[in-house]
Amino acid sequence: MRVLGIDPGITRCGVGVVDVDPSRRASLVHVGVVRTDPELATQFRLLTISDGIAEVIARFSPEIVALERPFAKENRQSVATTMQAMGIAMVEAARAGLPVAVHTPSEVKAAVSGNGAASKAQVETMVARILGLDKPPKPADAADALAIAITQAWRGTGILGSGVDGDLDVTISGGVKTRVGTRLTPAQRAWAEAEAASRRSGAADPRRK
Amino acid sequence: MRVLGIDPGITRCGVGVVDVDPSRRASLVHVGVVRTDPELATQFRLLTISDGIAEVIARFSPEIVALERPFAKENRQSVATTMQAMGIAMVEAARAGLPVAVHTPSEVKAAVSGNGAASKAQVETMVARILGLDKPPKPADAADALAIAITQAWRGTGILGSGVDGDLDVTISGGVKTRVGTRLTPAQRAWAEAEAASRRSGAADPRRK
Repeated sequence: MRVLGIDPGITRCGVGVVDVDPSRRASLVHVGVVRTDPELATQFRLLTISDGIAEVIARFSPEIVALERPFAKENRQSVATTMQAMGIAMVEAARAGLPVAVHTPSEVKAAVSGNGAASKAQVETMVARILGLDKPPKPADAADALAIAITQAWRGTGILGSGVDGDLDVTISGGVKTRVGTRLTPAQRAWAEAEAASRRSGAADPRRK
Repeated sequence: MRVLGIDPGITRCGVGVVDVDPSRRASLVHVGVVRTDPELATQFRLLTISDGIAEVIARFSPEIVALERPFAKENRQSVATTMQAMGIAMVEAARAGLPVAVHTPSEVKAAVSGNGAASKAQVETMVARILGLDKPPKPADAADALAIAITQAWRGTGILGSGVDGDLDVTISGGVKTRVGTRLTPAQRAWAEAEAASRRSGAADPRRK
């Protein structure tokens, strides 16, 4: 199973793709950061993130997109732009017909390090160890994106809704109508069903074996 | 000048298009609401909003997009999804090469009613009067979108950044590159320059004349 993890942000948006085999071993496929220039108007920065995420989805064909929900306690402007980047990532996932899962920072820390209050350095070290890398990926946003992808692959929780299989007719009052395609591929549907079954059986965290 | 006002929301996203002539008289072009089903997974709701806004931009060719910034005091989940809808609206504006302006709810109330603490009903009544409508547009999100468009046309404030004229090369570390087109049309550039000049000259609010 291939997971795209995204650490949403407007200045640096981390993107990490991992493959996880049936024994739950994870391997690195891609890691990067979509960067935007703080001098640009916000809408152009958000468009850059939208296009960058679409490009990663098109190039690496993940089966699910996992995102980190921002801390609500950080400063208000930072949370606002992070929520915007998160929403944009969700739209690109939906456009590709992919399921979306959301994790809190402490869930991600707990999944990769066994400690929900782990330091950034501890998380980065564990990401490198799990993926068999010589050293932690830099910058931190890239390592975080991989940690989010690993969390999703191992835990399988946090999936939003049940997805949609089919096209949606969207009616805008005033006479404008449009149609949104949300048809899942058979592989995506199989994954969503397997994931739901795994959650029902209460599969143990492999790190706790 | 043609303005698209958007009242961002995930359940009902108001969209209103108004034309404003050189004497600053405003007339209704279009009003509507992009609705999404609360049963759908969030990413499909956000995709619906993205496509709905893109459709309105394509159909009515506004020269600028104005948005209302959500109250920070509302409940946290509501602000989160509203910020996401707002970010998505900004991306669609950027994709169309349009300038974006943002207004607070009290700025909008003050612009259309002269009172920054006006009730929703007062704002709706003023929107109907300004546009020469028999009665206020419903639902409230639709009337709000028109109020936001009128605010933008009359005040000309709140424009984000200076825009970008040209293509952006976006580099994602790890080897993925993409390109974002942000070329402004001559009309858009002229508008942005005229708007900036108007702000510098401190043009008075026409309602205060």
